[in-house]
Amino acid sequence: MFLSELLPVRDAFRILDENQRFTEPETVDLLEAYHRVLADDIVSRFDSPPFDRSAMDGYAVRAEDTFGSSPGNPSTLRVTDSIGAGEVSGVDVGHGEAVRIATGAPIPAGADAVVMEEYTLQDGPDIRVLRPVAPSENVAPAGEDVRRGVTVLREGTLMRPQEIAMAASAGYSKVRVFRRPSVKVIVTGNELVDPSDDLEPGKVPNSNLYTLNALVESAGGSADPVHLPDDIDTVGEEIESSASEYDVIITTGGTAISRGDVVVDAVDGLGEVLFHGVALRPGKPVAFGMVSETPVFMLSGYPVAAMVQFDVFARYYLLRMQHLDYRHRAVKRRCRAKVASGPGRTDYLRAWADDEEVEPVQSRGSGIIRSMVGSNAYIVIDENLEGISAGEECDVLLFDSMVI
Amino acid sequence: MFLSELLPVRDAFRILDENQRFTEPETVDLLEAYHRVLADDIVSRFDSPPFDRSAMDGYAVRAEDTFGSSPGNPSTLRVTDSIGAGEVSGVDVGHGEAVRIATGAPIPAGADAVVMEEYTLQDGPDIRVLRPVAPSENVAPAGEDVRRGVTVLREGTLMRPQEIAMAASAGYSKVRVFRRPSVKVIVTGNELVDPSDDLEPGKVPNSNLYTLNALVESAGGSADPVHLPDDIDTVGEEIESSASEYDVIITTGGTAISRGDVVVDAVDGLGEVLFHGVALRPGKPVAFGMVSETPVFMLSGYPVAAMVQFDVFARYYLLRMQHLDYRHRAVKRRCRAKVASGPGRTDYLRAWADDEEVEPVQSRGSGIIRSMVGSNAYIVIDENLEGISAGEECDVLLFDSMVI
Repeated sequence: MFLSELLPVRDAFRILDENQRFTEPETVDLLEAYHRVLADDIVSRFDSPPFDRSAMDGYAVRAEDTFGSSPGNPSTLRVTDSIGAGEVSGVDVGHGEAVRIATGAPIPAGADAVVMEEYTLQDGPDIRVLRPVAPSENVAPAGEDVRRGVTVLREGTLMRPQEIAMAASAGYSKVRVFRRPSVKVIVTGNELVDPSDDLEPGKVPNSNLYTLNALVESAGGSADPVHLPDDIDTVGEEIESSASEYDVIITTGGTAISRGDVVVDAVDGLGEVLFHGVALRPGKPVAFGMVSETPVFMLSGYPVAAMVQFDVFARYYLLRMQHLDYRHRAVKRRCRAKVASGPGRTDYLRAWADDEEVEPVQSRGSGIIRSMVGSNAYIVIDENLEGISAGEECDVLLFDSMVI
Repeated sequence: MFLSELLPVRDAFRILDENQRFTEPETVDLLEAYHRVLADDIVSRFDSPPFDRSAMDGYAVRAEDTFGSSPGNPSTLRVTDSIGAGEVSGVDVGHGEAVRIATGAPIPAGADAVVMEEYTLQDGPDIRVLRPVAPSENVAPAGEDVRRGVTVLREGTLMRPQEIAMAASAGYSKVRVFRRPSVKVIVTGNELVDPSDDLEPGKVPNSNLYTLNALVESAGGSADPVHLPDDIDTVGEEIESSASEYDVIITTGGTAISRGDVVVDAVDGLGEVLFHGVALRPGKPVAFGMVSETPVFMLSGYPVAAMVQFDVFARYYLLRMQHLDYRHRAVKRRCRAKVASGPGRTDYLRAWADDEEVEPVQSRGSGIIRSMVGSNAYIVIDENLEGISAGEECDVLLFDSMVI
């Protein structure tokens, strides 16, 4: 593979955007909706709360009956009923009357405030009120949180616990969300063996199978990983059959010297290779193509190169499939060290960022998994920059901000 | 329930710490290990890479044979063998010789460098080398990433994709991780109905069941939620049977006026209530107890109060069960607005934080789910502070930093 003509990263993104596919919506129970992405606006079916309700355990009263109350001069009110949560009362609260009421229960007719239980004393059928309440005090009015008919959540919203609370409160126990992308992960390499095996000469543990499986999960997809030998027919058959079954195909490796770049050649034969070789460091030997309308990301066999290529391109694409975008989440940090970069090339430097600064993680080569373990962010150096001076602000993508 | 004696938040944490339980380790396939917490140190079984390997497709050579090479004056070498990935060669590379080699293949005996394919021309059985290489050039030495016997990951590590790569590379396809806590969620409230039902008078949609289910998931646990009426016997039986089956019990609501605080009374009868009422806003009517060695978190029926109580106490406990702690992840932000707070009380203000500043989200009452939807962080105001001035730095817990 010759990389004499490397594509700028922004052109690679343009090609991805032109070939972006989306997953269709599906309906899921709200119990399964955590960290899914809404496919519809949610419009409230109810006022929330649906009625004026008590914010406290106590007594529903006419506020004016309590004016001037004090421990030395309590008002005395006759208790005419009791309303538990989920109950309603037919009683009208008249002057000099009170209705015992639970937190969350509907305020009975006639009453306009609630005296907290701890500011009352019981006295047979009466209570003595030790403190005045103002009208509306301890009453949560109907529609205080949300009015019926209002759009409470927008399509494209990532469902955290509070959005799930809002959807339930708006009257839904099921929601429409974008389906998780299904991803066929094809790890090629005659040298790869199961990590728990003993190593024959020339063999190395297959880490990419496990890493890509986790990377896909971290991007909201579900992976189905397989390890194949560096054989163009075997790889080609797997890509062809996977193209009709999965939303996305991701491969790693496939650079057996005697047969060229097995994976890229296979995709070229089955469909179209849209780019091969990007001005990206690490990770320039990355390719992307389409086979039967299914995107195929061809990543390096080197673990760190594959991780970076995944994060830059495949993660971007998988999140966009679900109507999310991590690129807007970049932050600024002061760089602790001077970093050189070649113009015309975009660097994704492994780095450790705290809340103010970022420090590049020293490493050599794209095989150094240790450098990724020691990192929590990328420093992104745009192709127009020739580097960063020590103390200069730079663009940082925190790993935690790139996951679903 | 009377809250005349509210427990300081730090004392509530002390009681949680004294009653902290941990889940035991379990062995999982590395394909299932994403976002689990390691229960053992991982010690590498191999050098990584296991042998000196080629970093490029090209030719393994003796570097000195290429010194002085240029397009006008190429060195000529005889190709004696070819090594693909996963293969080994018995050939010794002598003076004037080269072996074709794939990326990742072991460097054959005699050779000490690799010439990249693009700096060679083929000429029958020979190659012409157009550029010199230095000794070790394009060779990734054995153990460059990790040496055999070295501890590569520590107990307590949260497994991201790169830690999974490291575990595989160190020779493991299974790892021991702390079991996810199993959590019985008991939502009480006669007023609660399924969100998709129509609302009878006095009824409200049951959002807590769905919210707590998602909150538990976001803390790495697995929830089994149930809705029960405000009946002390029913609630008591469920708590008693759940105490022997689950790691943690979380309840919401249970404040039917005529029967006192159903859940707290039930726990008091079955085991011990260790605190009830904390100097926390919002969320002071929170309780914690132990039944048959199983912790029981008793949260409010109000959705926002329950969310805050979960985040402050139950999330802390569930993460600690898995040997994680979110409290160290607090960051500093400049507060855009002046905020008042009472001394002796810890406030968790719903807020929106960007990378530099934080702004409290306006809201009234603990029922306002909308305010949580509009928030991405808590401003934490310690009990020793009487508030924050506009422009002052304050402690912020970003929601994203509190989840697994």
